[in-house]
Amino acid sequence: MPRHDGRRADQLRQLRFSLGYASAADGSVLVEWGGTIVLCTASVAPDVPTWLAGKGRGWVTAEYNMLPGSTRPRKARRADGRSTEIQRLIGRSLRAGIDLGALGERTITVDCDVLRADGGTRTASITGGWIALAAALRSIRDEQGQAVFPAPLRRPLADPIAAVSVGIVAGDAVLDLDYPEDSTAAVDMNVVATGAGELVEVVGGGEGATFTKAQLDAMLDLALAATAELAARQREVLA
Amino acid sequence: MPRHDGRRADQLRQLRFSLGYASAADGSVLVEWGGTIVLCTASVAPDVPTWLAGKGRGWVTAEYNMLPGSTRPRKARRADGRSTEIQRLIGRSLRAGIDLGALGERTITVDCDVLRADGGTRTASITGGWIALAAALRSIRDEQGQAVFPAPLRRPLADPIAAVSVGIVAGDAVLDLDYPEDSTAAVDMNVVATGAGELVEVVGGGEGATFTKAQLDAMLDLALAATAELAARQREVLA
Amino acid sequence: MPRHDGRRADQLRQLRFSLGYASAADGSVLVEWGGTIVLCTASVAPDVPTWLAGKGRGWVTAEYNMLPGSTRPRKARRADGRSTEIQRLIGRSLRAGIDLGALGERTITVDCDVLRADGGTRTASITGGWIALAAALRSIRDEQGQAVFPAPLRRPLADPIAAVSVGIVAGDAVLDLDYPEDSTAAVDMNVVATGAGELVEVVGGGEGATFTKAQLDAMLDLALAATAELAARQREVLA
Amino acid sequence: MPRHDGRRADQLRQLRFSLGYASAADGSVLVEWGGTIVLCTASVAPDVPTWLAGKGRGWVTAEYNMLPGSTRPRKARRADGRSTEIQRLIGRSLRAGIDLGALGERTITVDCDVLRADGGTRTASITGGWIALAAALRSIRDEQGQAVFPAPLRRPLADPIAAVSVGIVAGDAVLDLDYPEDSTAAVDMNVVATGAGELVEVVGGGEGATFTKAQLDAMLDLALAATAELAARQREVLA
Amino acid sequence: MPRHDGRRADQLRQLRFSLGYASAADGSVLVEWGGTIVLCTASVAPDVPTWLAGKGRGWVTAEYNMLPGSTRPRKARRADGRSTEIQRLIGRSLRAGIDLGALGERTITVDCDVLRADGGTRTASITGGWIALAAALRSIRDEQGQAVFPAPLRRPLADPIAAVSVGIVAGDAVLDLDYPEDSTAAVDMNVVATGAGELVEVVGGGEGATFTKAQLDAMLDLALAATAELAARQREVLA
Amino acid sequence: MPRHDGRRADQLRQLRFSLGYASAADGSVLVEWGGTIVLCTASVAPDVPTWLAGKGRGWVTAEYNMLPGSTRPRKARRADGRSTEIQRLIGRSLRAGIDLGALGERTITVDCDVLRADGGTRTASITGGWIALAAALRSIRDEQGQAVFPAPLRRPLADPIAAVSVGIVAGDAVLDLDYPEDSTAAVDMNVVATGAGELVEVVGGGEGATFTKAQLDAMLDLALAATAELAARQREVLA
Repeated sequence: MPRHDGRRADQLRQLRFSLGYASAADGSVLVEWGGTIVLCTASVAPDVPTWLAGKGRGWVTAEYNMLPGSTRPRKARRADGRSTEIQRLIGRSLRAGIDLGALGERTITVDCDVLRADGGTRTASITGGWIALAAALRSIRDEQGQAVFPAPLRRPLADPIAAVSVGIVAGDAVLDLDYPEDSTAAVDMNVVATGAGELVEVVGGGEGATFTKAQLDAMLDLALAATAELAARQREVLA
Repeated sequence: MPRHDGRRADQLRQLRFSLGYASAADGSVLVEWGGTIVLCTASVAPDVPTWLAGKGRGWVTAEYNMLPGSTRPRKARRADGRSTEIQRLIGRSLRAGIDLGALGERTITVDCDVLRADGGTRTASITGGWIALAAALRSIRDEQGQAVFPAPLRRPLADPIAAVSVGIVAGDAVLDLDYPEDSTAAVDMNVVATGAGELVEVVGGGEGATFTKAQLDAMLDLALAATAELAARQREVLA
Repeated sequence: MPRHDGRRADQLRQLRFSLGYASAADGSVLVEWGGTIVLCTASVAPDVPTWLAGKGRGWVTAEYNMLPGSTRPRKARRADGRSTEIQRLIGRSLRAGIDLGALGERTITVDCDVLRADGGTRTASITGGWIALAAALRSIRDEQGQAVFPAPLRRPLADPIAAVSVGIVAGDAVLDLDYPEDSTAAVDMNVVATGAGELVEVVGGGEGATFTKAQLDAMLDLALAATAELAARQREVLA
Repeated sequence: MPRHDGRRADQLRQLRFSLGYASAADGSVLVEWGGTIVLCTASVAPDVPTWLAGKGRGWVTAEYNMLPGSTRPRKARRADGRSTEIQRLIGRSLRAGIDLGALGERTITVDCDVLRADGGTRTASITGGWIALAAALRSIRDEQGQAVFPAPLRRPLADPIAAVSVGIVAGDAVLDLDYPEDSTAAVDMNVVATGAGELVEVVGGGEGATFTKAQLDAMLDLALAATAELAARQREVLA
Repeated sequence: MPRHDGRRADQLRQLRFSLGYASAADGSVLVEWGGTIVLCTASVAPDVPTWLAGKGRGWVTAEYNMLPGSTRPRKARRADGRSTEIQRLIGRSLRAGIDLGALGERTITVDCDVLRADGGTRTASITGGWIALAAALRSIRDEQGQAVFPAPLRRPLADPIAAVSVGIVAGDAVLDLDYPEDSTAAVDMNVVATGAGELVEVVGGGEGATFTKAQLDAMLDLALAATAELAARQREVLA
Repeated sequence: MPRHDGRRADQLRQLRFSLGYASAADGSVLVEWGGTIVLCTASVAPDVPTWLAGKGRGWVTAEYNMLPGSTRPRKARRADGRSTEIQRLIGRSLRAGIDLGALGERTITVDCDVLRADGGTRTASITGGWIALAAALRSIRDEQGQAVFPAPLRRPLADPIAAVSVGIVAGDAVLDLDYPEDSTAAVDMNVVATGAGELVEVVGGGEGATFTKAQLDAMLDLALAATAELAARQREVLA
């Protein structure tokens, strides 16, 4: 069945990364992904949470927020469970790509603020968040004033952390759902993977629907092809 | 490699359900699952959240909480992101097994309070939560005083919603991790499924580790065998 | 006038203490007191509140909470004035039985979570809280690894802190009110005393009713006989 | 033993009531009681809390607060457990003196704000709160514009609700403790009574001390003599 | 004295308005004003706050927020007094330009989120907020489906509400301070005016400095010339 | 047009300062200003906020609060934006009159609690707050036990910080609006100035009205004459 916007089942939406958009932050990127716009910034602080103090290791955490006017009706400016769930996923995903020991006693906070919401805000946040994080790492210098990047990145810069959504719409597995598809999908899943194709997080299910192992396999195939493509774009932006 | 408590890789811990433990609630069960104890209660209220009012449909929501003395060191009594994330998973899972239209304008709140935490508290909450929910449905009567149960259950009572954890420990896929295993697992995943073996939610990943599609398949095989066994136990308790 | 459950005016309900129920906590007891079930845990932390720091003394504090499904209708999980008032009473009562100077710079938090509410939850919390506290003291060791128990207990272990409710129901003083009695009592009073019969706290009154000095005397007589009996049970459990 | 300010054991401090001090409120009184100053206001609202709606009855509630500069060191402006406990006591005490059915569907909120704290702020709040409440009742008119006062007062205006503190200081029972006495008292008790000498609330105990039934009797004797005197003063102010 | 960026004392920074940036909102504009970027959105809701219900009038309110990465060091996502003060100024200013009676029972919320902060965020918020508000009014239709715009605008669209900052830097009155100037200014003032040159709000002063009436006059002259220029730009964008 | 209470356009209301009213605070004054009563207290703490630590400088901050019974209908005891805005104005104004370097590492908190509100509460708070602040400075002693007052006062004690409200009522500029005038004023402005006539803060505007430069000038003339008079009263009280 053709998709409402003419895309193939395995086709990503248009994607643009504007590196350094929020110039006060240590790293930043404005992600325009189809109709979705997310501003990702990464800020480095020279300390760590209390529970981690004195261990010589760093921390990466994330915050996710939709601006009130990013959706209709207006979203009130209060903490909600959905945002909490999403920011925990972003944080875990980004920590999978960094060596917290090599980071030293620093905390990097990655803020993902949704300016316009048209589906896929959490995967845009992870994918853009990794770019902001990598950009922020470039700003860190050791006591001799030497740049410490890319030491804390666990893998070569060529191997980013990327994320994409997949789902079952009208019975078929499709990639990168926009808002109209997301609202009607029976199953909605987010897949986070490395550029090399290893899985980082698989998170999904359905409100009031179930799915088979075969459907899960079809969704994962779509996702892993797309995260490889996204990783290439992430490397390109930072080059 | 043998497990620290002598179990096989595909073996569940000891399990006991005490139905009706909190007799003031409409439905309740005390779940003792290995060293973990969770009290699940389900309370029926004759209204729905504002956003659902007037649509003739009901709602099921969940709250998850660890008692301060359930773990060491003591857990402070404040809302945290982990609890929010878990209670959203419990709510979505339980809603997959119920016909909210047949429920009528009622809200059922399923409370899962952890009395002792030794791994698998979220899967004990979902599995026990479904029992409490089913028990509470029995207490609902229509205007003629007729029991409306089991109409809201989407499937025959013989087909519950059950959940189990799986993970990669020392390179191997294992079932139903206790706390010592959970602390050392490279990957930790929760699988929610129906008694008939359809998937409801697949949620997991690793802090600082990645996994392959083959490892995911091995974990799912273990999980689906166990949820079938759990569903049999759930039916038995309610019989 | 006979009581609705056949008890005499001076008769306690059935009582069972399960020591060590929440094994992760330093001390714990599950209290089943008639239809009421309260889980009391005591957790030791190696520091004190800021206002007490550096004085070489310890602190004991209490938290009281009713689980949502412990009563009908469901009780929302939010802090309320009644819980605040009760936990302050529990804390003051337990501090009366312990030498905070001998405790050293440690804080013991006694958590009382009500699993099922059928009257007398605050007196069950104090009586069980003292058991959990005494059990936790056994786990404290000094720098030489010697157990410091029972030094911080102000009196021999043979002299616990116990509490019981009394009230005026249908004009008569009665002991240990259950929920149906509590709802109809003109006056409701909680008496906390030592095993030796000294008063620790006397707290009570009526919503919209008054009482005479003679009625107060009758209630205190019932209470002091019962706290002596409860103290014997407390000693027995810890023996 | 003589008291530090030369009073007899059974002697109240100097007392002045300024009726109508906060003229925007329906009823108000500034209470100067020794060195303690409390402003009590009573405000009538034409509705009741949700849980009481539609029952044709009214409600009386109280709030207690210490202004930051009323004590040393400065008290931060945040809700604390002590205030919660005190305002519940004030509310219960005032409700004992009013017929909520005769009040109609109205809520009266009695606010007790401590301007200067020198001991006895809770008993000044109850005693002054009753005056503010009685004054506010005068402002209520029925649909025909007739004053409904004093119908809701359960007893003739000649029989107010008054409160006083008593304690054991240096082994002796004394009345109306000021701050220096309160800080060193072994036992501190608040007694609320009607002008006719019936008890409304008896609340007290010791931090780290115990007391005997005989000491309790001595304190109650002092208190009941004083509340009769206070009731005379309350009637006089309102005359 | 020349300004650090070469501007004349009476010269505005570069200014760009991108109308409709957040397309889900009823009205929106991205304001790039020198190095400052603010996203203003206006959302229409079909009701009014409780205190205004049933009076046939509408309401306009504003919220102001700096994104965490908009400044250095990162700004935590918590409500602060400065934001409260600023959003009240924005709301009052925008209400001065609209006929709330003609608006009908609707609430328009204007959200001003700062993406990059380089001075003048509050004046960019007011100036852009008026554009978003005007754009949102175009989306409102009456029961016959007729556009009700521009009825609620008190003045012809040709007369907007605009705002600009002025200050005393190194002894001289200057217009439109950027962050380096703002940090060193002795006096900092925000002037809100109509296109026709009437004053709406004058708000300002100094931290630890004072100023004369003559200096105030000089600042107001600069401001009123600039708000006329800004009003022309506002009209142009909406044409 | 004559004013409703017979005052001339340039006439202040009756004013009384009771120094030392709240004797536990380091400085305090009860301000009775027409029908408005505000209690101002100043408390000195021997430390500074974290962001100022170690710089050898002090801090002055203010809190503003209306007691629930100070107005009709009763004002709920919750933080609101208006209070936040006002307390920031008070804090900025008071800091303009003190040398924070000479204060040393101390924080002075000035609390302004409104007991009765009849217009002009914020200007009464600033004017009274300065008196409380000056009184508190007298209580500060250096390490040799010498009084450090008046070193931190930037100007001789003869030159206080005073504030007054002005507005446009029925087309005319008038001084010191009471509540009935304030409710009908087209423009409402607060002017803070030194005794010597320098401006500290000018803050004002209209809800739904505008004003001309000429009207602003007329208001400032009235205000500056009044603040000089107020400064004389402030000096007198402290003499």
